[in-house]
Amino acid sequence: MILDKIIELALEEDLSLGDITSDAIFAPQDKALAAITAKEDLVLCGLPTAKEVFAAVDPDVTFTPLANEGDAVKKGQRVLEVQGRVVSILKAERTALNFMQRLSGIATAAREYAAIGQKYGVLIVDTRKTQPGMRRLDKYAVRIGGARNHRMTLADSVMIKDNHIAAAGSITKAVQKVKAVIGHTPKIEVETTSLAEVQEALQVGADIIMLDNMTPDEIVRCKQAVAGRAILEVSGGVNRENLETYCKTSVDVISMGALTHSVPAKDLSLKIVKYL
Amino acid sequence: MILDKIIELALEEDLSLGDITSDAIFAPQDKALAAITAKEDLVLCGLPTAKEVFAAVDPDVTFTPLANEGDAVKKGQRVLEVQGRVVSILKAERTALNFMQRLSGIATAAREYAAIGQKYGVLIVDTRKTQPGMRRLDKYAVRIGGARNHRMTLADSVMIKDNHIAAAGSITKAVQKVKAVIGHTPKIEVETTSLAEVQEALQVGADIIMLDNMTPDEIVRCKQAVAGRAILEVSGGVNRENLETYCKTSVDVISMGALTHSVPAKDLSLKIVKYL
Amino acid sequence: MILDKIIELALEEDLSLGDITSDAIFAPQDKALAAITAKEDLVLCGLPTAKEVFAAVDPDVTFTPLANEGDAVKKGQRVLEVQGRVVSILKAERTALNFMQRLSGIATAAREYAAIGQKYGVLIVDTRKTQPGMRRLDKYAVRIGGARNHRMTLADSVMIKDNHIAAAGSITKAVQKVKAVIGHTPKIEVETTSLAEVQEALQVGADIIMLDNMTPDEIVRCKQAVAGRAILEVSGGVNRENLETYCKTSVDVISMGALTHSVPAKDLSLKIVKYL
Amino acid sequence: MILDKIIELALEEDLSLGDITSDAIFAPQDKALAAITAKEDLVLCGLPTAKEVFAAVDPDVTFTPLANEGDAVKKGQRVLEVQGRVVSILKAERTALNFMQRLSGIATAAREYAAIGQKYGVLIVDTRKTQPGMRRLDKYAVRIGGARNHRMTLADSVMIKDNHIAAAGSITKAVQKVKAVIGHTPKIEVETTSLAEVQEALQVGADIIMLDNMTPDEIVRCKQAVAGRAILEVSGGVNRENLETYCKTSVDVISMGALTHSVPAKDLSLKIVKYL
Amino acid sequence: MILDKIIELALEEDLSLGDITSDAIFAPQDKALAAITAKEDLVLCGLPTAKEVFAAVDPDVTFTPLANEGDAVKKGQRVLEVQGRVVSILKAERTALNFMQRLSGIATAAREYAAIGQKYGVLIVDTRKTQPGMRRLDKYAVRIGGARNHRMTLADSVMIKDNHIAAAGSITKAVQKVKAVIGHTPKIEVETTSLAEVQEALQVGADIIMLDNMTPDEIVRCKQAVAGRAILEVSGGVNRENLETYCKTSVDVISMGALTHSVPAKDLSLKIVKYL
Amino acid sequence: MILDKIIELALEEDLSLGDITSDAIFAPQDKALAAITAKEDLVLCGLPTAKEVFAAVDPDVTFTPLANEGDAVKKGQRVLEVQGRVVSILKAERTALNFMQRLSGIATAAREYAAIGQKYGVLIVDTRKTQPGMRRLDKYAVRIGGARNHRMTLADSVMIKDNHIAAAGSITKAVQKVKAVIGHTPKIEVETTSLAEVQEALQVGADIIMLDNMTPDEIVRCKQAVAGRAILEVSGGVNRENLETYCKTSVDVISMGALTHSVPAKDLSLKIVKYL
Repeated sequence: MILDKIIELALEEDLSLGDITSDAIFAPQDKALAAITAKEDLVLCGLPTAKEVFAAVDPDVTFTPLANEGDAVKKGQRVLEVQGRVVSILKAERTALNFMQRLSGIATAAREYAAIGQKYGVLIVDTRKTQPGMRRLDKYAVRIGGARNHRMTLADSVMIKDNHIAAAGSITKAVQKVKAVIGHTPKIEVETTSLAEVQEALQVGADIIMLDNMTPDEIVRCKQAVAGRAILEVSGGVNRENLETYCKTSVDVISMGALTHSVPAKDLSLKIVKYL
Repeated sequence: MILDKIIELALEEDLSLGDITSDAIFAPQDKALAAITAKEDLVLCGLPTAKEVFAAVDPDVTFTPLANEGDAVKKGQRVLEVQGRVVSILKAERTALNFMQRLSGIATAAREYAAIGQKYGVLIVDTRKTQPGMRRLDKYAVRIGGARNHRMTLADSVMIKDNHIAAAGSITKAVQKVKAVIGHTPKIEVETTSLAEVQEALQVGADIIMLDNMTPDEIVRCKQAVAGRAILEVSGGVNRENLETYCKTSVDVISMGALTHSVPAKDLSLKIVKYL
Repeated sequence: MILDKIIELALEEDLSLGDITSDAIFAPQDKALAAITAKEDLVLCGLPTAKEVFAAVDPDVTFTPLANEGDAVKKGQRVLEVQGRVVSILKAERTALNFMQRLSGIATAAREYAAIGQKYGVLIVDTRKTQPGMRRLDKYAVRIGGARNHRMTLADSVMIKDNHIAAAGSITKAVQKVKAVIGHTPKIEVETTSLAEVQEALQVGADIIMLDNMTPDEIVRCKQAVAGRAILEVSGGVNRENLETYCKTSVDVISMGALTHSVPAKDLSLKIVKYL
Repeated sequence: MILDKIIELALEEDLSLGDITSDAIFAPQDKALAAITAKEDLVLCGLPTAKEVFAAVDPDVTFTPLANEGDAVKKGQRVLEVQGRVVSILKAERTALNFMQRLSGIATAAREYAAIGQKYGVLIVDTRKTQPGMRRLDKYAVRIGGARNHRMTLADSVMIKDNHIAAAGSITKAVQKVKAVIGHTPKIEVETTSLAEVQEALQVGADIIMLDNMTPDEIVRCKQAVAGRAILEVSGGVNRENLETYCKTSVDVISMGALTHSVPAKDLSLKIVKYL
Repeated sequence: MILDKIIELALEEDLSLGDITSDAIFAPQDKALAAITAKEDLVLCGLPTAKEVFAAVDPDVTFTPLANEGDAVKKGQRVLEVQGRVVSILKAERTALNFMQRLSGIATAAREYAAIGQKYGVLIVDTRKTQPGMRRLDKYAVRIGGARNHRMTLADSVMIKDNHIAAAGSITKAVQKVKAVIGHTPKIEVETTSLAEVQEALQVGADIIMLDNMTPDEIVRCKQAVAGRAILEVSGGVNRENLETYCKTSVDVISMGALTHSVPAKDLSLKIVKYL
Repeated sequence: MILDKIIELALEEDLSLGDITSDAIFAPQDKALAAITAKEDLVLCGLPTAKEVFAAVDPDVTFTPLANEGDAVKKGQRVLEVQGRVVSILKAERTALNFMQRLSGIATAAREYAAIGQKYGVLIVDTRKTQPGMRRLDKYAVRIGGARNHRMTLADSVMIKDNHIAAAGSITKAVQKVKAVIGHTPKIEVETTSLAEVQEALQVGADIIMLDNMTPDEIVRCKQAVAGRAILEVSGGVNRENLETYCKTSVDVISMGALTHSVPAKDLSLKIVKYL
């Protein structure tokens, strides 16, 4: 597979000059069975990435998941076995775990937040505040957790923000400039900070209207004004503590940067089970 | 500069097909002055990386820091100005901020933890539990915060862990196997779980003895037994809450994975100050 | 600038072992002024790429456009001057021209097709049938010509095609499966081959309905049935000869693969004007 | 295989963030048999590249050609079957087809032109006017079609052109400068625009003399003057319409940029034959 | 495997546009058995790298070593057989041999030097004077030969040299500056040119003291003064001729740049044994 | 500049995690003037590469050669000054020197061998036995020394060797197979081991005939038989000791692998001259 440069980079930075400990202690042909175990409750995510990590280090390492991607896994549960050359397993260990720990952290949080949203019919989505190099994987973990993705890149949907509006002169002018050159596939989202702006965005044909840092009361008023004629997205200041309060507005979408920029890693560890 | 592949990757994943919003609204020659402001108190880190991000997008963007790398910055403080083509500034914005937010998050935590360690003469160090692709930068942020670095890669110092010891038969045999092939520059660290193992590691000439998941009481006993003849490092289960308790053992070094695998990002934002 | 791998690749494949002719005949310090001239009428496109090519070979070569990107240029018109080391100019020549010839070819065709579409209020858009490695640049040339872009990648809008529909069981089921996991930003496009399918797609909430290989009469009937409730896109079998016939249906969008997969290059050549 | 960066680049630009449609509709384990069919008569080219594309996306996709590279294939003929995960097949589809369509376009044209040349004992060769990143593959398609390759890069044979001659002072001086430093393996080709220049090039020992933009009558006169003592190559202004006229001069070689810079793609399409 | 960029680079520079001779003479499906033979006595090194070279060109080539990495091999001894497509074998031949010849050259020299050191209890180590791009492989060959590695990179142990000392003001100040920021894992080495400097370095706690260009007599005096309290390394001016003289000082370590910057290649050649 | 991947790789392998010594001792803004001096007589080669190394580490380092590329330089002569940030100079030092030491080693040997050849009208050329990744630079150093280059890659001239001849059935058949597909630009070289083979190669139109491991007497006989109708190249077993003996045959070309696979590095060192 050709796509995962972040895997290549992660291996290079840990391993490009070898593993001086394992190479000294093990013969190249020594083999073992090792297991990866969850050290706390978590939503498992990152198996395909871990598979690529082990395969990149040594295509002969066999990779046997004991749980499915997206499973809610309990502390102490063995989630994965790998078997093959000991030096290969130990060289890949830290990199594979670093991916799994982060992705499981994101998936676990996404699962929790999505469940809250679902109670109120609100989609919980991520942002572009992903870790550098991890855009594809971070957003994949969000989906595995059950939340949804906001746009992937600067090229796949239009997002007109304060700086754009100020430069164009008004929301109306900014949207018109975009419509004069854009194709028919991207939706147009406009960031707003007041009911008046929401109404202007609606008037000029925005597909999505983002309510930036509004209170729940303001959100409800905007929702009533829009009455389903555009998708309403709440953004800014939403966290685990106040998420349910915002969900009670029954807004269409809430976007949360914390899903990817501040999520704690989940603890997983690898142990050799037996030498073969 | 040739070294920062993670910057290249981060820009590619956000920007490789352009910024359809900014390209529609701004003419290529439109210019502006923009500022990056701290949205909360933080230890500033990531200026050189942000500089490379802006330069990679457009070498003509000028980059003027208003604070120094490592400064304790207050909420609302402007830390950086950039000036140049608006489309370049907006294309680089998110990537530059993603780096600065993570690195400032690490530096802020490292500053706090290092200060606690310093009271008791304990070095606080990181681990290899860094984000994929961010090894160099994560460890740099740890140093900017005032904590220290554990080994960088699998090739720069020897770390004999449980799996190695089990395979070799004993700590003694494991260390001997390493000494039979290793050069004179790497230190040899041995992971131990009991006083007996600590004594064996000391006997066979370990430079660093890691005390894995020991209680403060056990740590104190090990410290008395070793009496300065090797460096003692505490690892496992140390977090912000219990750090001071462990520091009171006056062990030489405490390593903390949480410094890099679970640190919350610090909030920074970019606003255009004026169009030129 | 960090983004243009296709430029790096193009230079590597021509130049990675040097230019044995120019290196034998010119001293490294020999300097000249050279000009690039259009050998036929064309819409000029590729100046920024050519600039990067020359800069990649030698940052000291100065680059002075004599026409603007997107200008309609006449046969014999000088469009660009470069000045600097002769060996650098000659090493970059073929690669720079290969880019400009292709991109001007696309822009010229796009200009012509877009003008026809505009008479009838039809957007002319490209496809993903771009040359390998040239996605960003091919689509940029389409925009410079005045046509628009269909989706950029497989990740930026949903396109449900015959294979997807067959697998899901029906258009309705396919759209429902997508809506169950997709975020709120991508539009959903459905490929249809009959009026019945168009009506099913409309019913289930498709944003864009693609009419695959329909006759102008069929297209008109679909347009009446949809009555503005979705965007209608004609695709398949449209070429320069029959474009106007299809435009007369006043469909919203016509997509044309020929804009990028079969466009003839426009002829441009470089001559040294004087040695300095 | 390590060599095909253009394949990596082509996949990246289409697929690096996934295929949001196929991932929503198919389960990862869904499998199918799909076929690629020629939609018009063509000389088939690109099977090995298509194989690498499918393998890069998923090494488990089986690849079964139903025709040979270089075969003259009829409209409607099935040329290739692939079997494996549906999502893998659909993710690779467009990239594989983009390569096959271009390469078959080149091979088809090369076959036709080479046949004309062969009637008169003239070698038809390509130029360096290949698509960026496609040098190796474009030239390979030329050979598959039965035409031949001119030099591959700026480093593999000497080509003394007008700019070199002007700088050196004369053809004689230019050739002498080259001979003073060049190894014994590259041939020396000199561009000429008159019989006098042809004679000078012959005198100074050029291996190949290129007749730039000469008329058939001029070419015949040059051929008589050279009388087999050097290889004569016609270049400039030769296209499909006038090719046979130029061939009647029985010159040794005719080079044609149009073989690679303006060749229309041949139409091929992929359909899923059955789900497994 | 993902790590060996130097292999990718070596293949690219030889093979990126094909092998015009072999492609003309062999059909793609022609197969053969070929053997690599030592043309002189040597310590064999480079089998894993050669294996990667053949696999990168064609994963179907089978690779059968007839000797072990590190074996002392006699002139005329067959060390390796490869079997598969002839064109693949011939395309990989030169690159595989270029690696094996260099690495066997290094291993052969390292074996000889290490044996001399061993008689006197002296470790022979390499330096960072490796061939560009070959750091990992050159140092691997040193170990295969039985010598040891000095530091791998600028980041894995501290080496305070004349320029650092001059800038800091003294050895003492330089070491103190380092100790104020460095982690607990890297050893600190100080370059010295006199007994006084050796004593200062010892005083301030250097782990390794390098004796730069000292005579054997001076070395002996330093050794007596240090009395085992730091590791003593001799560097500068040691070559094959005088190595034993320096070893007689019983210094701990001697580092030799010549192991990697000036080692003659060992001769190996590939012949096709039979066509299959 | 975009071309020198080996420079990028060389810097990465030494520097990708920083220089822990220099970063501890110098402030980032500390500046100095440093000089590179020849420690033995040598032909200077590698200035442009060293310039790229310093620029890649820090574009603000100024680079002032004190001698010209190709100059015969005396022991003790200062050849280059660099000025700028101390940490940048020290980070680039080893990599820059590693290139210069190798390239000067090659150029020095090439100068000596070429002079011997010149006395007898023999061209001395290199082979493809270059260091991995160094093809372009190694061959450049050969030219700077005054020797010439044999073919650069497997794609730029035809070399029919024993394995090809055996497979084709005879030299005649091998050459005919090549001529049936090859373009008009590559020369055809045939490896021979006897006068009979030389005559067969001549008959079938080889441009270059390689005499493999022949004695001077055999070479003279072949030369008389060929009488200038093809270029004769001697290869195999030629070294510094017997070179003049082979040159006395007045063969056209002698190729020597030792020029690049076994050349000793020339010693150069960098010292800081003053702090600024």
